[in-house]
Amino acid sequence: MEQASLRDLNEPLIDHAEGQFFLNEAFKIIMEEVLSNGTDVKQKVCEWKEPEELALLLDLGVRETGEPRDKLLQRVRDVAKYSVKTSHPHFFNQQYGGVDYHSLAGRFLTEALNTNLFTYEAAPVFVLMENEVLRGLRQLVGWTEGDGIFCPGGSTSNMYAMNLARYQRFPEVKSQGVWALPRLSIFTSPESHYSVKKGAAFLGIGLDNVIFVKVDDRGRLIPEDLDEKIELSKSQGAVPFLVSCMSGTTVQGVFDPLDHIADICDKHKLWMHVDACWGGSVLFSKKHRHLMKGVDRANSVAWNPHKMLVAGLQCSALLLKDTTNLLKQCHSANATYLFQQDKFYDVNLDIGDKSVQCSRKVDCLKLWLMWKAVGSMGLEERVDKAFIHARYLVEQMKKREGFQLLSMVAPVIKERMMKQGTMMVGYQPLGNKVNFFRVTVFSPLLSQKDMDFFLDEIERLGKDL
Amino acid sequence: MEQASLRDLNEPLIDHAEGQFFLNEAFKIIMEEVLSNGTDVKQKVCEWKEPEELALLLDLGVRETGEPRDKLLQRVRDVAKYSVKTSHPHFFNQQYGGVDYHSLAGRFLTEALNTNLFTYEAAPVFVLMENEVLRGLRQLVGWTEGDGIFCPGGSTSNMYAMNLARYQRFPEVKSQGVWALPRLSIFTSPESHYSVKKGAAFLGIGLDNVIFVKVDDRGRLIPEDLDEKIELSKSQGAVPFLVSCMSGTTVQGVFDPLDHIADICDKHKLWMHVDACWGGSVLFSKKHRHLMKGVDRANSVAWNPHKMLVAGLQCSALLLKDTTNLLKQCHSANATYLFQQDKFYDVNLDIGDKSVQCSRKVDCLKLWLMWKAVGSMGLEERVDKAFIHARYLVEQMKKREGFQLLSMVAPVIKERMMKQGTMMVGYQPLGNKVNFFRVTVFSPLLSQKDMDFFLDEIERLGKDL
Repeated sequence: MEQASLRDLNEPLIDHAEGQFFLNEAFKIIMEEVLSNGTDVKQKVCEWKEPEELALLLDLGVRETGEPRDKLLQRVRDVAKYSVKTSHPHFFNQQYGGVDYHSLAGRFLTEALNTNLFTYEAAPVFVLMENEVLRGLRQLVGWTEGDGIFCPGGSTSNMYAMNLARYQRFPEVKSQGVWALPRLSIFTSPESHYSVKKGAAFLGIGLDNVIFVKVDDRGRLIPEDLDEKIELSKSQGAVPFLVSCMSGTTVQGVFDPLDHIADICDKHKLWMHVDACWGGSVLFSKKHRHLMKGVDRANSVAWNPHKMLVAGLQCSALLLKDTTNLLKQCHSANATYLFQQDKFYDVNLDIGDKSVQCSRKVDCLKLWLMWKAVGSMGLEERVDKAFIHARYLVEQMKKREGFQLLSMVAPVIKERMMKQGTMMVGYQPLGNKVNFFRVTVFSPLLSQKDMDFFLDEIERLGKDL
Repeated sequence: MEQASLRDLNEPLIDHAEGQFFLNEAFKIIMEEVLSNGTDVKQKVCEWKEPEELALLLDLGVRETGEPRDKLLQRVRDVAKYSVKTSHPHFFNQQYGGVDYHSLAGRFLTEALNTNLFTYEAAPVFVLMENEVLRGLRQLVGWTEGDGIFCPGGSTSNMYAMNLARYQRFPEVKSQGVWALPRLSIFTSPESHYSVKKGAAFLGIGLDNVIFVKVDDRGRLIPEDLDEKIELSKSQGAVPFLVSCMSGTTVQGVFDPLDHIADICDKHKLWMHVDACWGGSVLFSKKHRHLMKGVDRANSVAWNPHKMLVAGLQCSALLLKDTTNLLKQCHSANATYLFQQDKFYDVNLDIGDKSVQCSRKVDCLKLWLMWKAVGSMGLEERVDKAFIHARYLVEQMKKREGFQLLSMVAPVIKERMMKQGTMMVGYQPLGNKVNFFRVTVFSPLLSQKDMDFFLDEIERLGKDL
């Protein structure tokens, strides 16, 4: 309290000159540690520390009094140093690796502007920009009209689709809850992302009402089994309402046969949702977009440009074919403090009530600026490149001995790579198969020699096992 | 395709030197347009354009081919120019105005690192940091142990609380859905944030099962009426399970009497949630924390440091008293590709399954760095300052004639201020009261002369009405 009593609280507490100097210095550290060293193939991808040791090194505790500038800048440096370098060419661990500098510039601008995307008066540029970016994505799906919204991640997009499908069929759910409805059922592949289960639990539908359809030996949903499971569910007194298909499964990257699934959805009049969070970006590629043939027949598509297009976390679009304002009808609460109807401009531009969020971050600018920078053709290249790398890896692995035998040793190899900091790649079991490495190779930063490095490094790390 | 065919897709598509040059130039524009001009009281707070005109000015459409560097930098400048300056001293429009440079440095670092906060291996620094920041916030609530998570906004925090309360009472909801449960009811004040309604709809509980409790003439929930409404709901066959209280209502900033409400919740064994998204920060202030007396008796608290503390969008903590791992039990799906159990470190550090999101942004760093920079005492000052400004405004308004008479002219005054760009402040009706201006004055950038400006400007804009 000594400090407080010395300051005149009628005056600003923040010194712009000092603050901007700090931000400048922090920016230099970010450029050096994260973007230069962090993308340098000769540097480590991670600096592994045991949790207890890391907590001590970082001195995380918050205190009564503040710290001087130099100490704070050292903290910025330390956070960078001990964080995983997700833009490093040897970060094969998850589907958000890589960096795009135009996108990152858009993200810095987004943060500095600190805009809340709910009304035209508060977010004029971004209301229009989101609309335009969604239009561009919908066009790739094959829709000339429709609706959509950016969500905080693909799981939320999938949940939105689930809620919209339920509301369209049974609008009374909004006022009366699920009690007013017959028992519902959802159909998806066992290879689908876990957010279908999380969504069913969160929305009060329940895990037991998610019905898993058989997949073929490549992991693709079998439409005939879908048809049978729907009939079976009906015969058990449930009302099927939603089929959630995968374009790019989480583990194997498999694309479900959308056209055949659409036939079944048509037959039973079910909402067809496509979880294309991972695979949606193939729509940019003339060569690979056939993998999603039939997507235009879906009711909704979830697509995360923060994965294959490297737009940066988070950039998750939910796209809708609907033209009846279903999104707003389903989610609106008509708050008078935000969505006044006596405004001096077209209140249809106040899109916030389409969301179940109130504050909503701007996630369109990073994608828009990147798209402007490289064009649809540049994004197409990224997709084609990802497939080239994936194919190369498969071919090379066939040529090398021992790559079928990882199984039980995967956790040990993983531990070694992390502690040496040379590479990061995820492993996991699948069905009755044992552990294998799931390597993601779509970053536009990668080259063929990174593929070779991956193969060599796995061999090196496991050679004595 | 011409362009693609000319490039070797086995080589990186991104030029680090060019990219970093672009980012540097964009950073300079952000510093100049957003942080210098945008906080300059002599500059406009917004540059109003009609939507059609703005769309033309920005040339939003995306195309096949990319654009040169200078054009893209001009786009960065244009986005900044036509966006609302939320850090401007005359942005009184919503509760996220202002800027903190330490927080902003943390946000830039967050974006550059592009970390997904779900496992220790992918996010070692932030798993530990989030835990520490949540501990610090819980301590202010009065809890020495507990749990918590950062959510994408306060609405999501409130929904999480609703889902946890439901699951704790009826764990079978996760597998069987709401059909297995008796009809549930939720209790809140009509002044509460609209996310209670949105959450009830989204979670399948239904708007009709949100019961509004009477408030007193200052807008505070009346505990006796709460007790009666709970009894009434039970007599109508419903099972009350949640009371959602407000610490800082959206429109008037009212604090519900938590201690009295806790007595009622104890009596009926209901989950007590406190929506302190706006008001929670008073817990930093020795002078004002009495407003939340009894908060330690709650089961959960939602608190948005992106509001009164100016941590930047989004920074929303859900705090839990629970020590039984309820958050994880309620939300987990145990995905094997992410949460392998044979890892070489303590898998309790893999916190991702506590969330219904999969990708989750890092929202703790910005708050942590700011807290380290100014200490709890610095944050206390911000809260005390906000109350000083609010009190000053009330006193001055009493002295000035005409401030009770805005009502019908509010929309006109609003239009004038936006088109002149001198100020932004929201208006709205309340209950049977007519329109009034809701001015938010807690930014640490503000001084008393900004309060005088607000009063003078309202008079100037409305003097002929």
